[in-house]
Amino acid sequence: MSTSTTQGDTYWASINDDIKAHLNWAIRVRDPVVVFEPMHHLTFAQPKSMAPALCVAACELIGGRRAHALPAASAIHVMQAAVHVHHNLLHKGRPKPMNHGFGPNIQLLTADGLLSFGYELMVKCNDNDNLGEEYSSRVLRATIEVARALGSQGMVAGQFREVECGCDEVALGEARGVEWLRYVHEKKDGGLHACGAACGAILGGGSEEDIEKLRKYGLYVGMIHGILNGAAGRKDEGVIEMVENLGELALKELKGFNATKIGAISTFIHLILAGL
Amino acid sequence: MSTSTTQGDTYWASINDDIKAHLNWAIRVRDPVVVFEPMHHLTFAQPKSMAPALCVAACELIGGRRAHALPAASAIHVMQAAVHVHHNLLHKGRPKPMNHGFGPNIQLLTADGLLSFGYELMVKCNDNDNLGEEYSSRVLRATIEVARALGSQGMVAGQFREVECGCDEVALGEARGVEWLRYVHEKKDGGLHACGAACGAILGGGSEEDIEKLRKYGLYVGMIHGILNGAAGRKDEGVIEMVENLGELALKELKGFNATKIGAISTFIHLILAGL
Repeated sequence: MSTSTTQGDTYWASINDDIKAHLNWAIRVRDPVVVFEPMHHLTFAQPKSMAPALCVAACELIGGRRAHALPAASAIHVMQAAVHVHHNLLHKGRPKPMNHGFGPNIQLLTADGLLSFGYELMVKCNDNDNLGEEYSSRVLRATIEVARALGSQGMVAGQFREVECGCDEVALGEARGVEWLRYVHEKKDGGLHACGAACGAILGGGSEEDIEKLRKYGLYVGMIHGILNGAAGRKDEGVIEMVENLGELALKELKGFNATKIGAISTFIHLILAGL
Repeated sequence: MSTSTTQGDTYWASINDDIKAHLNWAIRVRDPVVVFEPMHHLTFAQPKSMAPALCVAACELIGGRRAHALPAASAIHVMQAAVHVHHNLLHKGRPKPMNHGFGPNIQLLTADGLLSFGYELMVKCNDNDNLGEEYSSRVLRATIEVARALGSQGMVAGQFREVECGCDEVALGEARGVEWLRYVHEKKDGGLHACGAACGAILGGGSEEDIEKLRKYGLYVGMIHGILNGAAGRKDEGVIEMVENLGELALKELKGFNATKIGAISTFIHLILAGL
């Protein structure tokens, strides 16, 4: 492992530790406990993506403070957990075994609760801080980003495309072509990572150009993450070519940012490509 | 029917027409159509409550403009539709027949899309308007109200209490006591109407006292609505006493507001009590 990748690991680990600490503070035990328990469990039990961490890294890249991005990053983590829980309830021919004892009713309702809790975390971004009214506008804008990434033209559109095939992810990855993979992962992981990076840039006070470049960076790295993790085992020539191409596009978007800071955020690509 | 009730009907009908017009404008045909169609259908096909209209009425009672409350009222309508769709997916022993052709996967995902679309409508409240930064803070505060009303200590808590019984609503109404009814409808319809009224007061620029009084008014009328509509057919002595008591409490909260305007919002109680 190269030195830069090791530094990258440390950087992402420190961000993820801070997000986890913020979440543990935010999701305190509350009544009714029968609702709180699955909510707490499912928040931390779901597979992780780097979309929340990317929110923090994008904010820091443009000189924003980590504290300004942590609530939004935590919100994205929670909402992503909600999406996973509902995804596991979809009838896809071969349901995945669950390693918790919550039945489908509890999963359905808990994820609804998590989704609204995520929005609460988003819009409470500016509690406890004297950033003034300007920051409220940034928070509103970031919340629109999240709502669109999760909504009918984002995550839900990708999931629709999956369920209309009526089979599970592995079978889908094998049965469908590269363009199908591209569409689904652009809408799902691509959209969520793009949203994470754009939110970080918005909350950190980035320019429109910064926001759009970081959104694209997030889109490309999110698609890579989704393609490599979603279509398990599918690493044929077409997929490898697409992933490598996306990696190059992603790195191009980082040009022009603070050179000493690019190192940290760009290690994300090395981390996910290590799985190839 | 008394003259004041007729005037009330006209008032609520004009609000509901405006909410419908706003929604028809907001939910324009968009790609992918396969996602848009169930989204559009399920938004308008669900049973209505008066929580969205109450948002507008509360805003107008304190002198706010209808246009400032319509996006939030529309958002509450959409989110309420999402809750209904997921509610119908819960296993309660006797599932309700659906009069649309959408399968459970489509319903699950569409409601997720509607929930995020609702939040998008909420936080876009201040687009196209030059109300300044002060209004952004009001929108953020109203969004927190909605997230809490829908979340783990609101709607979801009420639904948990229902599903833990493993039977349908009618059976629940008969099997459970008055205190059970009070809890569930305080969390569900009560919470949603309280949220609607509080959001209207917040967006209209009401004082803290105005907001709290209108929140309580919404809570009481929402509970009446929920109790009379949820526990179908259950109108025994205990329920009638609770409902009448809630009606009196609701009217008390309106004291002190503009006397000429109280007439319109108070007709809500006569409208729902007409079902007794």
